[in-house]
Amino acid sequence: MSKVITPRSESYSKWYLDIVKHAGLAENSAVRGCMVIKPLGYAIWENMKAQLDKMFKETGHVNAYFPLLIPKSFLSKEADHVEGFAKECAVVTHHRLMNNPDGPGVVVDPTAKLEEELIIRPTSETIIWNTYKDWIHSYRDLPLLINQWANVMRWEMRTRPFLRTAEFLWQEGHTAHALRQEAIDESRLIHDIYATFAEDFMAMPVVQGSKTESERFAGADDTYTIEALMQDGKALQAGTSHFLGQNFAKAFDVKYMTENNKEEYVWASSWGVSTRLIGALIMTHSDDSGLVLPPNLAPTQVVIIPIPKPSDEIDAVAHDLMDKLKANGVSVAYDQDKKKRPGFKFAEHELKGVPVRIGIGKRDLEKGVVEVARRDTKEKMTIDLNGVENYIVELLVQIQDNLLERAKTFRSEMTTKVDDWGSFKDVIAEKGGFILAHWDGTEETEDKIKEATKATIRCIPLDQKKESGKCVFSGNPSVGRVLFAKAY
Amino acid sequence: MSKVITPRSESYSKWYLDIVKHAGLAENSAVRGCMVIKPLGYAIWENMKAQLDKMFKETGHVNAYFPLLIPKSFLSKEADHVEGFAKECAVVTHHRLMNNPDGPGVVVDPTAKLEEELIIRPTSETIIWNTYKDWIHSYRDLPLLINQWANVMRWEMRTRPFLRTAEFLWQEGHTAHALRQEAIDESRLIHDIYATFAEDFMAMPVVQGSKTESERFAGADDTYTIEALMQDGKALQAGTSHFLGQNFAKAFDVKYMTENNKEEYVWASSWGVSTRLIGALIMTHSDDSGLVLPPNLAPTQVVIIPIPKPSDEIDAVAHDLMDKLKANGVSVAYDQDKKKRPGFKFAEHELKGVPVRIGIGKRDLEKGVVEVARRDTKEKMTIDLNGVENYIVELLVQIQDNLLERAKTFRSEMTTKVDDWGSFKDVIAEKGGFILAHWDGTEETEDKIKEATKATIRCIPLDQKKESGKCVFSGNPSVGRVLFAKAY
Repeated sequence: MSKVITPRSESYSKWYLDIVKHAGLAENSAVRGCMVIKPLGYAIWENMKAQLDKMFKETGHVNAYFPLLIPKSFLSKEADHVEGFAKECAVVTHHRLMNNPDGPGVVVDPTAKLEEELIIRPTSETIIWNTYKDWIHSYRDLPLLINQWANVMRWEMRTRPFLRTAEFLWQEGHTAHALRQEAIDESRLIHDIYATFAEDFMAMPVVQGSKTESERFAGADDTYTIEALMQDGKALQAGTSHFLGQNFAKAFDVKYMTENNKEEYVWASSWGVSTRLIGALIMTHSDDSGLVLPPNLAPTQVVIIPIPKPSDEIDAVAHDLMDKLKANGVSVAYDQDKKKRPGFKFAEHELKGVPVRIGIGKRDLEKGVVEVARRDTKEKMTIDLNGVENYIVELLVQIQDNLLERAKTFRSEMTTKVDDWGSFKDVIAEKGGFILAHWDGTEETEDKIKEATKATIRCIPLDQKKESGKCVFSGNPSVGRVLFAKAY
Repeated sequence: MSKVITPRSESYSKWYLDIVKHAGLAENSAVRGCMVIKPLGYAIWENMKAQLDKMFKETGHVNAYFPLLIPKSFLSKEADHVEGFAKECAVVTHHRLMNNPDGPGVVVDPTAKLEEELIIRPTSETIIWNTYKDWIHSYRDLPLLINQWANVMRWEMRTRPFLRTAEFLWQEGHTAHALRQEAIDESRLIHDIYATFAEDFMAMPVVQGSKTESERFAGADDTYTIEALMQDGKALQAGTSHFLGQNFAKAFDVKYMTENNKEEYVWASSWGVSTRLIGALIMTHSDDSGLVLPPNLAPTQVVIIPIPKPSDEIDAVAHDLMDKLKANGVSVAYDQDKKKRPGFKFAEHELKGVPVRIGIGKRDLEKGVVEVARRDTKEKMTIDLNGVENYIVELLVQIQDNLLERAKTFRSEMTTKVDDWGSFKDVIAEKGGFILAHWDGTEETEDKIKEATKATIRCIPLDQKKESGKCVFSGNPSVGRVLFAKAY
């Protein structure tokens, strides 16, 4: 247990903030709701980004960059979109400051008022579809498979680092297709990529499903989501992929000429994941000693610590081992700081979530062994120095697998099938977690359940078993169970 | 010659805009002065970014991310900085829109006025140094070597894609050091990295030097620059690295405790290159047929074209060759479009600057050869199919070298030593290019030369030969020649 981290049992939300702070992931800035992403937090984001970018490119997507600012009028063009996004946002009204005529400092120059206000993008559908209008004329121009890595801003009232911030970093894909089915296939392809990324890299199991109408993206005909379960039993929406129908094509008048010379509106998808994933990663694996990182995303996978301190002999062994590990594609650091004791270093790297620690001591070297400690289980093993690099490579795979298995086991224990309203309320109030229950398909019931318990329908699972049942709230007929939970 | 590109001889600036447009690099957006970076333009930026990021990391730098918005008052804290940056910038004054009570659309909610206006970062020294105050306490916290990849905004009046845009993408490094000399060394290290990147990757020779006081970054004690020469004889400042002294440390009260328990202000550097480099790349190498890309930055290095069209036989050869090229680290595309003729494809890939084209025809295959064309010289060679991959790997190196040599030759022809005012005016007016001339070291002379000829001192070259001479304008004593040019 760390001295600086509040235990989860005492306060889960304080525990989260303590990890973000003391592992050096992020901190609040001087601007309300905007965080500074510190080097370790950003390095995790770089690893996420590199992997996702690879997966997008392998499936034919290319990157581009669209403007930060959106003319105010654009937001009003798609009727649902304006309701969802044109409210709490940062508005640019002027383009010049001037020296304060009445004292020190600078003031806004009143003569530099913009004719039309500009909004810092909360998401880019509008500016992108306004651009696509000029890019798409014929079926030959389709499909258009474009992604953007960017910052966006939503003026959130209550913020929490990574989970909900005014400014955040994300990727947003915006694709255009000739046929309806192609756009649906695209949104599902990305939905699968997100799920694969969550499980194989974040070691975070997710439920794949579609959102109910009331939880859909503003402007979408269908929203696919991946839902993860955090250690406090609350759900976290980790990524969404939207089938946008022809809504934005119609709003921005984007038509194409078919092979048979007919004019048709274009079909669309959009999809995104953000720095919120870092919050999800923390809350899936970390413990009361600090951050726990899956090897596939850890900026430093292995740290070598000289015991009790660096020496020529230990340095030589450490550098040799580093070379061998690097040759095996392992990222490794050697903590040579002479002013800190081993125990201090152990706690520090534990706090920062380094998956494997190797201790090299003089006496151990005489016996030809080193001490290997894994962050996930905290087990310590004595391993022959000769060939230890192969052991480490294998261990990193084991840790990655173990984290996923552990999270799957937790999720399975925390998923409850419920068939009556009394149990539903009890489970939500006491146990938490995911609830699989029948729902009558109406927004009215959805709202009433939310009002009574704060639980929402996270998704209609893709693998939902078709079975007739009775709605847990209304008793009306239902065709299958949906996933409920309280959510971040 | 391309049908869509205005020749340089007719209009250099139209030629530039034609290449940006028809090669598909960027276009203007609906927001004044903000461009859309299209997939090819962005792919070049990604390659630049990957290489620079590698060079920064190899020299001990890490990435982080700081907020987009800066409180207005921060800009006034450093006296010179405010003069340079707190003028033409985007000002956020409100955080909410509402439905228009008098009609359709949305309007700014007057009740959501911010207490203090926020500025979209024109550069991040102020917000970062405000953060560093909390990060730096002791000599143990130094040096701090942080870089950020971000978008910034300066409300420019006259914009041109890549060269000068309101929003642009860049990296900005911000480092903090215990000692003055360490901060100077850092700014010079980066200066060298920029020069190496320009020459080895962009194939663009640069003059390294320091700026005169009047051309320095607002808030710097010294600014190092790399200056490149464009084909129209104008200079382009391609990257700058600043020694900031203790100016920002004092403005934001950032002190550290030395090993001897003394409190001292921290020393700083900052440095950046931006998407402007893409403009420099275009204007260094491209020709009247379109874009010319150096192989080390080209998103597609080799394109294979079936002649006259794809067939099973040609496809098999093409795929085999692609595998071999990829195994050699070459990025290669196969243009299988059945609707376009080879001649059309040749022109298209020439326009987009692909360094090498391989034509595979049925008759050539019978002879066991393929046609290889290089973009830089437009030479065509008939090469044995057997082993052609080795030829291509070598050819890409040759093209890279040739582009740099060609640019060096041009620069050397366009650099003139001038010793009298009459020749100075003539050379600037007629020949253009770089002028090496003596200067008396005063801002007054610098201003008068600029007024008379529009030429500015691009830099005091690092390799300046110390020689006594007479100022080309005033006749007063000078200690060495400085570099003059008209500049972008």
